[in-house]
Amino acid sequence: MKAIARKVADQLERIAARPEDAIFLRVDADRAIAAAEASDARIAAGRPLGPLDGVTVAVKGNLAVAGAPWTAGIAGWRGRIAERDATAVARLRATGAIILGEVNLHEGALGATTDNPTFGRCANPLGAGLTPGGSSGGSGAAVAAGMADVALGTDTMGSVRIPAAYCGVAGIKPTAGLVGRGGLAYLAPTLDSVGPLAPSVARLWPVLAAIAGPDVRDPDSLAAPAAWTEGQQPCDLSGLTFGVPRQIDDVDCEPAVLTAFALALEAARAAGAEIVTVDVAGWEPGRARRGGLLVSEAEGAVAMAALMDVEDAISAYLQGLLAYGRDAGAPRLVDAYARMRAAGAACHRALAAVDALILPTAPQRAFPHDRPAPANQADLTAIANFAGVPAVALPVPLAEGGLPGSVQLVGKPWSDGSLLAWAEHIEAELAT
Amino acid sequence: MKAIARKVADQLERIAARPEDAIFLRVDADRAIAAAEASDARIAAGRPLGPLDGVTVAVKGNLAVAGAPWTAGIAGWRGRIAERDATAVARLRATGAIILGEVNLHEGALGATTDNPTFGRCANPLGAGLTPGGSSGGSGAAVAAGMADVALGTDTMGSVRIPAAYCGVAGIKPTAGLVGRGGLAYLAPTLDSVGPLAPSVARLWPVLAAIAGPDVRDPDSLAAPAAWTEGQQPCDLSGLTFGVPRQIDDVDCEPAVLTAFALALEAARAAGAEIVTVDVAGWEPGRARRGGLLVSEAEGAVAMAALMDVEDAISAYLQGLLAYGRDAGAPRLVDAYARMRAAGAACHRALAAVDALILPTAPQRAFPHDRPAPANQADLTAIANFAGVPAVALPVPLAEGGLPGSVQLVGKPWSDGSLLAWAEHIEAELAT
Repeated sequence: MKAIARKVADQLERIAARPEDAIFLRVDADRAIAAAEASDARIAAGRPLGPLDGVTVAVKGNLAVAGAPWTAGIAGWRGRIAERDATAVARLRATGAIILGEVNLHEGALGATTDNPTFGRCANPLGAGLTPGGSSGGSGAAVAAGMADVALGTDTMGSVRIPAAYCGVAGIKPTAGLVGRGGLAYLAPTLDSVGPLAPSVARLWPVLAAIAGPDVRDPDSLAAPAAWTEGQQPCDLSGLTFGVPRQIDDVDCEPAVLTAFALALEAARAAGAEIVTVDVAGWEPGRARRGGLLVSEAEGAVAMAALMDVEDAISAYLQGLLAYGRDAGAPRLVDAYARMRAAGAACHRALAAVDALILPTAPQRAFPHDRPAPANQADLTAIANFAGVPAVALPVPLAEGGLPGSVQLVGKPWSDGSLLAWAEHIEAELAT
Repeated sequence: MKAIARKVADQLERIAARPEDAIFLRVDADRAIAAAEASDARIAAGRPLGPLDGVTVAVKGNLAVAGAPWTAGIAGWRGRIAERDATAVARLRATGAIILGEVNLHEGALGATTDNPTFGRCANPLGAGLTPGGSSGGSGAAVAAGMADVALGTDTMGSVRIPAAYCGVAGIKPTAGLVGRGGLAYLAPTLDSVGPLAPSVARLWPVLAAIAGPDVRDPDSLAAPAAWTEGQQPCDLSGLTFGVPRQIDDVDCEPAVLTAFALALEAARAAGAEIVTVDVAGWEPGRARRGGLLVSEAEGAVAMAALMDVEDAISAYLQGLLAYGRDAGAPRLVDAYARMRAAGAACHRALAAVDALILPTAPQRAFPHDRPAPANQADLTAIANFAGVPAVALPVPLAEGGLPGSVQLVGKPWSDGSLLAWAEHIEAELAT
């Protein structure tokens, strides 16, 4: 058995061994095995399709995989079979990546614990009973458990980065419009981004490079300036200035999160970056996040309208959220969009003075499924969605060997390449 | 009497001679005369405050002028006295510009004829009984009538550029966030921009340069990249490519408008530009404009909420529009925002392939006040607001000596300087 085939067999075994973890919704074992053999053959012939040939991918269940149920984690969509791959999935296949199957997510992608009423309570490989976060909880868990090399997630207010943080992996929410969203079951198209998760920052880049590009299936797709791929590759972070938002103080962060953040700042400094405190004036994290939540509920109520009239199609909980958005009324919704816009503008103004913002990813580390989810999970992540800018989350190991923390770099539009290169330096420094 | 004082006296006389034109809402004659004397003294001393010293300005009535009624063209705000100047007004004063007073506008800035139920039917100096367009109708008329050197307007879906077109003057809607909107009575903050009108493109630049810049009074204000002022000053337009949107065909344009547009294209070509047809795929002008109208009505209903409950504060017509927006319901509003977003993204994608888009400003020239306003007035202008990009309108004289046409250049974000420089070349070519 060649290397890729062996890896795929191992991963399939690992998935099959723990059905109670509710990480995978469906596994496409036969096709994955065939694809692995094809990858091995190409690699043996010295003709891999690219850096992703043979890399295995877990796909969040709100992205279409041709022939598979396209559920978005929703009961009423269990029988909906995708006719064609989502744009990002098709692009990955074209580079030789192997789609292992679809993974669990928070119901309708609206929430951050992935305790799915239909598909089960998704495990976090870092500890029994812990939430992997969400909404891309299965994506974070699959990568952390070694069930897939990388995963695709989607991020509306932090849904890639929060599970990356809770599961101790890396993830990026790209610049808005960079990754085509054809075949995504939208939650809130104003904010939704497709982005990868991987065990380390270095593995994010080839996935992002493969899935990026204009997409006729996505009305909000943009043409990236050529410079977006220019990952600056200095030997360190000298000459760069990262801003620490004063507003972190307004968010109730767990002490360990702040300890991890201090370590990350130390690592960035050790790598040569200058760290300054900045006032992201106009950004009120809780107020902006609540605006984003109402917009997500209202846009979600449009995206999932057909499910709201069908009995048992969605949980009473999700029905309640969506109905709240649907019935909010225009004046409240106008105010919610205005809050998002103001936070986004504040982010852009702050980014004009520094190379990137640096802040904790989530205010807490992974917590037990049995504990209620804190309201502030997305307080520090949502601003990148409001601004449409890229944000990469990377794990910060904590000395005591407990759950890791996570730090975010938030960059200027189309700086995705540079941002990942910079994050790699911090990651390397943290590992020393 | 020195030059500036004489000019101001002439302009004040011109204004006073035609009260029936309903162009000015209020004239600040004493202060203007004093300011003119101060300008003359500075100029005589060889110490002007800058290129705008002594330039007279008509201010659209939705922008605050300290001590003056801040009406926004609304009956219910006749008694509201502004405590401080709008940011743009204050910045102009600081450069020695002379504020002549406030000018008429479409009621609440929501409409494009400036037939104001409270302040009168604003005249168009180009012809008796003609609308000056709107909502900045008084701004366009004041400049066209020589009552002021330049004017400030505001543009939500075309409200600077449509009156510029109808009145035969130039105007620019700047990049979103470039000009601070402190002291603007908002209509739709998602779309509203403050921008100048002037007899020729060349006079727009010093005004824009003076009013641009971050504004703590505007939550959506942005920090412009330094390059925005780099008006490229080539000797011609060689090497530039302007795209003609295929979508112009979907808009019912008056034959004379298309004749003028052909002349403008000829002028651009003669100046060295390459003209190509582009498909702004995803932009449906009528559909997008209707989305923008609903957003304007809904955001306007928030901005003017206090007026909606007071008898006779606003006209029944405006009440109807705002109530329609207020009561639209979240799902329809979500759809409206999505239409705007899609049109904006389409514009950005098209701009990635060309230096600017070139298109007629309005589908019609000025028409009689007595004729109903066509629904499509903003079909070709609103896309720049949806995309947040700059758009300059300049007049195109028509051979027969009738009403002029107008052409728009729509540019990439922060290309305001270049765009104005390019527009000057077309203007010069048209004059030959």
